[in-house]
Amino acid sequence: MYSYQRLKSFCQEVFLKIGCPAEDAKIASEVLVSADLRGVDSHGVARLSGYLRLYEADRINTTPNIRVIHETPSTAVIDGDKGLGLVVAPFAMKIAMQKAKMAGTGWVSVRNSNHYGIAGYHAMMALDNDMIGLSMTNASPLVAPTFSKERLLGTNPIAVAIPAGKQPPFVADFATTTAANGKLEVLQRKGEEAPEGWVQTKDGLPTTNSSAVKEGGALLPLGGSREKGSHKGYALGAIVDIFSAVFSGANYGPWAPPFVSFLPLAKDPVGEGLGHFFGAMRVDAFRSTEEFKSHMDHWIERFRNSESLDKEKKVMIPGDPEREMEKIRSQEGIPLLTPVEKDLQEIASKFGIQL
Amino acid sequence: MYSYQRLKSFCQEVFLKIGCPAEDAKIASEVLVSADLRGVDSHGVARLSGYLRLYEADRINTTPNIRVIHETPSTAVIDGDKGLGLVVAPFAMKIAMQKAKMAGTGWVSVRNSNHYGIAGYHAMMALDNDMIGLSMTNASPLVAPTFSKERLLGTNPIAVAIPAGKQPPFVADFATTTAANGKLEVLQRKGEEAPEGWVQTKDGLPTTNSSAVKEGGALLPLGGSREKGSHKGYALGAIVDIFSAVFSGANYGPWAPPFVSFLPLAKDPVGEGLGHFFGAMRVDAFRSTEEFKSHMDHWIERFRNSESLDKEKKVMIPGDPEREMEKIRSQEGIPLLTPVEKDLQEIASKFGIQL
Repeated sequence: MYSYQRLKSFCQEVFLKIGCPAEDAKIASEVLVSADLRGVDSHGVARLSGYLRLYEADRINTTPNIRVIHETPSTAVIDGDKGLGLVVAPFAMKIAMQKAKMAGTGWVSVRNSNHYGIAGYHAMMALDNDMIGLSMTNASPLVAPTFSKERLLGTNPIAVAIPAGKQPPFVADFATTTAANGKLEVLQRKGEEAPEGWVQTKDGLPTTNSSAVKEGGALLPLGGSREKGSHKGYALGAIVDIFSAVFSGANYGPWAPPFVSFLPLAKDPVGEGLGHFFGAMRVDAFRSTEEFKSHMDHWIERFRNSESLDKEKKVMIPGDPEREMEKIRSQEGIPLLTPVEKDLQEIASKFGIQL
Repeated sequence: MYSYQRLKSFCQEVFLKIGCPAEDAKIASEVLVSADLRGVDSHGVARLSGYLRLYEADRINTTPNIRVIHETPSTAVIDGDKGLGLVVAPFAMKIAMQKAKMAGTGWVSVRNSNHYGIAGYHAMMALDNDMIGLSMTNASPLVAPTFSKERLLGTNPIAVAIPAGKQPPFVADFATTTAANGKLEVLQRKGEEAPEGWVQTKDGLPTTNSSAVKEGGALLPLGGSREKGSHKGYALGAIVDIFSAVFSGANYGPWAPPFVSFLPLAKDPVGEGLGHFFGAMRVDAFRSTEEFKSHMDHWIERFRNSESLDKEKKVMIPGDPEREMEKIRSQEGIPLLTPVEKDLQEIASKFGIQL
């Protein structure tokens, strides 16, 4: 078990070692380890070595000049200057919130960035300011649109954070695929089959082989098949891709740069780096904050207390599972899988620091 | 077969007969019949008698004073004054576009409205102004959140319209459930079973009984089951509900007023009428319109031409099926099912007009 603080300090030291300014190393490690704290292990310290390999492949600039390149009262486009997404994203979300302060809402599209950690972290930045936060990003192409054999989209997550009053906030944070790649990797390690509707073979056929993506197959859009609405999951993933990358001038669709450094970048890029999209809406741009929060409490209570299937399967509010995990791990620490621990040990010895 | 023009004129006359001003009757009939033209038969003239019954139940005000009750540079809240959603929604979308002209984007939440026809119509209003349009609405509670036995949400659709250059626009318009209620009704009429993941029984159990919703069961959120991501569909439906109704002060969740007039309204309303949410984003608030459109064309071409399963199952761009249907029905006319035709005949004789 590792404490949140210990893992965060470790990541911070590593980011300093590769040349990040102190402030950037701090925020990047906070974003990264918040994933472990909230139970989204696939997006936490397990990815640290991946970010380092991107740095070594000269795909990450640790001293970026992140800047606004276009704006209106409620929008901005940001060039991330090849910076860590973990640093570029909070910068962009702050601009969205500044715009919202003046114009009621703020919307920021980002180009020339890299993987930004968990989508939810950035959306949740809005909560303390009595704003609704939105965050989305495109990602490594691993997903086949309905009826396609090709991998044209990423798992393209959407996060929406909505403040409440006495109740904890509503925080949805989900990939627009049936299941995220991390869940598939868990099944692979256990040697188990995947449920129907998660993946297809390289020939575009349904399969329960949990290694299908590694064998040239693809993840499937939310819905899993045409009959069960996969064209809706495909549309959602496409919207995320367009807002993140076509708005900003990043690479979209199959041109999105892969997170794993051993895969080559597209030879004919259609933009710069990866793209993100952020939104901030002031609660009081619509309604008095007090009224809004009291109705959000009412909404949450009604749904949480609705008649559920059984005691084991209660109706949850988006964000409940992650918040419960955060509570447990804040107290008991964060467990790491052996390969992840080994990975961090190697990083520690490479940089001459302590885990 | 009926021509678009003929059905539209008929609806227009009917709306005039119940007291709508000429301009309102015109726009309402245009929104309604655009659904038939685009092949979304469940939301077109088949619903005319439903709107009339709402009017007779004193749930629709045909001479509403639709007005902005709260605003910032990029937002507004609108009170629809119990008007037809078919009239309130285009009004609200125009306000969103006016805001976008000044502030880059415009976001409008609406209370005290009624059923607004197809979500896509309103989103598509943005296209001619080189804007991206968004439209969503809450609706009659027929959907059970993951693990719930209760019907707490509507089919809560999301529509996003994005302009392109030489290519036709990207127009996604979908319910946040596995399948819309209209598709279920088609199966009922044919006496066929529903696919897995569409509905559950009143005890919250999976079923393929296409009459399950009529028997106290519920539609299921996109994903269909927890294992296949229904918590994501539930989160999407919840976001639509909150943006449409908690932002604006409309009835949310199980309090949303049902479209069918024979179902009673909630005795303890939490707001006024039904809620909608609209967005307009100027393309050039992010990037030069020319650049954006040329990359949208590139995006669309890459996806449409991707390697597909077979010749019958080509990869489609959201909006393709509806546009193809519009082309056919503009030329050949709109077919009506016998019960719908009978319905319209009855309306015609009631008001002493010709179908």
